[in-house]
Formats: sequence, structure tokens, C-alpha cells
Amino acid sequence: MKIIRSIKQMQRVSRELASEGKKIGLVPTMGFLHEGHLSLIRRAKKLSDVVITSIFVNPTQFAPDEDLARYPRDEKGDIRKIDKAGGDIVFIPKAADMYPDEFQTYVTVEGITQTFEGESRPTHFRGVTTIVAKLFNITQPDIAVFGQKDYQQAVVLKKMVTDLDYPIRMVIAPTVREKDGLAMSSRNKYFTPDQRKETVCLYRALTGARKMVKNEKIYGTAVLRRKMKKIIKEICPVAEIDYIAFTDYDTLKPVKEVNRNTICSLAVRLHGVRLIDNMRFY
Amino acid sequence: MKIIRSIKQMQRVSRELASEGKKIGLVPTMGFLHEGHLSLIRRAKKLSDVVITSIFVNPTQFAPDEDLARYPRDEKGDIRKIDKAGGDIVFIPKAADMYPDEFQTYVTVEGITQTFEGESRPTHFRGVTTIVAKLFNITQPDIAVFGQKDYQQAVVLKKMVTDLDYPIRMVIAPTVREKDGLAMSSRNKYFTPDQRKETVCLYRALTGARKMVKNEKIYGTAVLRRKMKKIIKEICPVAEIDYIAFTDYDTLKPVKEVNRNTICSLAVRLHGVRLIDNMRFY
Repeated sequence: MKIIRSIKQMQRVSRELASEGKKIGLVPTMGFLHEGHLSLIRRAKKLSDVVITSIFVNPTQFAPDEDLARYPRDEKGDIRKIDKAGGDIVFIPKAADMYPDEFQTYVTVEGITQTFEGESRPTHFRGVTTIVAKLFNITQPDIAVFGQKDYQQAVVLKKMVTDLDYPIRMVIAPTVREKDGLAMSSRNKYFTPDQRKETVCLYRALTGARKMVKNEKIYGTAVLRRKMKKIIKEICPVAEIDYIAFTDYDTLKPVKEVNRNTICSLAVRLHGVRLIDNMRFY
Repeated sequence: MKIIRSIKQMQRVSRELASEGKKIGLVPTMGFLHEGHLSLIRRAKKLSDVVITSIFVNPTQFAPDEDLARYPRDEKGDIRKIDKAGGDIVFIPKAADMYPDEFQTYVTVEGITQTFEGESRPTHFRGVTTIVAKLFNITQPDIAVFGQKDYQQAVVLKKMVTDLDYPIRMVIAPTVREKDGLAMSSRNKYFTPDQRKETVCLYRALTGARKMVKNEKIYGTAVLRRKMKKIIKEICPVAEIDYIAFTDYDTLKPVKEVNRNTICSLAVRLHGVRLIDNMRFY
């Protein structure tokens, strides 16, 4: 497996691969990889000839009060895991190369970035779209794989690809969960064992709502939301709910009644850590 | 010569060319081609295997009160000229395909887009950087050629390429002029023959200042600017000067004394038409 740290070298290698007719798959990550990331790499491997996994903790998608400095890192472990999952190239650029002092260009998706995650984290998506555009330009992928866990991010990035005409197929892979249902996330390591038990509240709220929809035919989102809040508070009384949203899967527009294209997504702050999750009910 | 109107087809053709190891040169234009554009195509031809010339009158770089509707068009003539200049592919996308109703993604270069052209035309550069990013993604060029006449645009686009890591070599080709010195522009056709004579005032002001710098060793930009205003007003009393700027060639920062890296650029409104031009003095 090849490790590349220079932007120029990565561009050269990608150009060479393209000129050999190789199909390139890209899996952008912020490192500290878990089974969720590895499932994306394996998925990319099935769909392309060469898989590039990028590791870059992207400063522009963190707000000043967020966890950039303490965001967990484990480069050696990550490289080992990527190799085992079948990755071909790991791209690990330096922050000073990605964002030199005089950096002043941003890619912005309007509209759908204003709500939910964008409301709590106003500059977050601009950071995400900018870094992903840069990674696309550097690695020139045919396919890019992202996780369903960051559902709004996936919708925003698909919109960017469509609007800016990137010739890239966007693949959104299902969320991988721990045994108790907690969605895998690098941030899960912030919890003590006791706190960790309470993090199941997001999954339980989602599956509780799904049960009401499927078994009891309750479609009103106001009722469902109340029920979900109750479930969360019962499991974790100190939980602060950022939002519980029922939206159209493709447009992110809120719906009052659950239908086959609805997705429920939520963000909850637990013991100082903000977790997100989502689920479709059909 | 191949004419392509579909974005998807253009993407496919570019991918194929890349997989054959062909070097792609891109010349983005708004059509109504003159000798200036053709010089860019010939330059691209020297530097690449396949030259793609795009024709697209880009609505997002015009303000509502600008000349989008009356901007001159001549598709048939353009195609003939591109063929003669050695172009290989003409890409002519439809506005409805480039900007569908729900379009909501923009590429923005901050800072250097706020002054000069950006001050008079606040949304102009956002439109330029967005359309050029789209054209880059569709055609995947190795080289892109732009004209020196739109000097600030060239600096802004070079900044976009650097910041977003496009693997593209940016070539800025010299301004082509009419016999009397007027920089070639599709907008020159707006003038009546009498008005057309007065348009030489931009060139005369620039060469007048150059003479003062080179022969009389006058470097103070305040003095030079006063002299240039006088020249313009003598030739065309109704001229409205938007700006006469002396800036660093690379950073666009204003300078008080002309030095070897200074460029003088100006924008003048003549009989309802806004013209720009620029010149280096060494």
C-alpha cells in the first residue's frame, strides 16, 4: 500500500492512473477509523480499481468552540486498518499545505445547508464542501463513498457534485452500528463506560419511532417526536436535544406526516459530546 | 471538428481522452469570437493534444442591469472561426442544463474579488469562478488559457486553481489589439463608428502613462492617474471613469509608486458601454 503526503504527488499519481484507464474510488475520512469507515473502503474496492483513502482532520469544518484540538488521531493504526480493508493508497496531506496562510476560496451549497446541522454549526458545511472539492480535484475519483450516518452531509455533497458537474458517482453506504445500536463514530471514545451506556438513547428513539410507524400506523411527526424525546430523556436525563427532524430524504424539506421517502434524523448532546444519527422507517 | 452540447457527453469524451493519455487544453469563451479569442485557441493548441473551446454566455456573471440579453451571439461564425484556428472540440452547453432551477452551489474567492471589477460588479466574480469550476469539472483540462485583458479575472481564477488544488496549468495570453490600440472585445460592436473612434482613450491613457514612467521617470501613481484622466477626457469628454488602478501584478494590492511588478488597469464607461484594459510598464 502506498502512502502519499504531497498534494502534487497525489495529483500526479491520479493522472497516471486515469491515463491507464483505471477507475479510482475515493473514501475521504478524518482518520481514527472504525468499522464504519472500513465498510466504505470495502465498498469502494468493489466499485473501482484503485481505492484512495484520505486522512485529514479538516479544520474548516470545526467551529472555534468545537473539538478540533482534541479530535482523536491514530495514523499508524489507521494505515494498518486501511491496508487490511484492501485500500491501495492512503493520502495524508498536511494542514499547512491544504490551507496555506493566504487561502481564500470556498465552495458553498446554499439552502439545504442552512437547516439542522447547518443551524447548529453555521460554517460547518462550507468547510465540508470546500475540503471535499479539494480532495476531488487532487484525486480525480470516478466514485466517492460516504456514510449514511452523516446524512445531511451526503445530501449536501451530492448537491455539490450535481451543481458543479463533477463527473463522480456518489455512493452512500449504510451506517454501521455497535452491538447495542449506537452508530459508530470517532467521537464515541469521548464517553466513560457509564456515559457510553446512555448513548444508546438515539438508536432507541429511532427504533421506537419506527415501531410506532410500522406497527401502530402512527404517521404524525409531532406525536412521534414527543415519543422520541421521552425515550431519550428516560435513558439519559441530562441529554440536550438539538433537533429531531422528519424530512424528505432527497430535498431535506420537513414533512408533517411520515411517508415512504421520509428520513428521521436527530442530534443530541450527551455529557458534552454531540451525537447524530438517522433512520428511514420503510 | 466535434460539436458537443450535452454535459454528460462532454464528460465522457474528456474521460476517454484522459484514458488515452491525451493532454487537454481548454479555452472558455462567451462566444462572438474575435482575434483575441483565436489567439488563445492557437496558444492552447501549441500546449496540448486536444483543444476544447467552450461557448457559453454565463448568466451568473451578469448583474440584472447588465447586458446579458443584448450580449452579441454568432454561433455559426464562432464554430467556423474555431475550426480555422485549429480547435478540436466546441462545447456549447444550454443555460438550462448548466443552471437548472434548483441550482444552489457557488465557488467564491474572497478578498481579491472585492476591489476594482468586484466593487462595480459585486456578484460578477462569483459567477465567473462558479462557471469556470463547472467547465473544469466537465472538461478535465490539463491546461486552461485565459486572456490578459481580463486581468483581475485571471488573478482570481489562478487563485481558485491554487486554493482548490485543480491540477491545471493556467496560461494567461497577451491582449490582442485593434490597429488603433483598442483591446479586442465582443462589446466593441456596441459603438457607432464615431463612438468607436473615442474608445481609443483607454489605450492612449495607458501608453501615455507608460511613456511618463519610462521616459520621464515619473513613478508616483497619483500624478500618473491625473495625467491619464486628462488624456481620457480630452479624447472622450463624456467618458465616466470607474477606476484607474496601480496594483501589484500578483496580489492586486494597490501601490503608490510604480515598480517592475506593477500593473495599471482601468475601467471606463463610454456611451453606455463599460470597457476595461490594462498594461504593464516594463
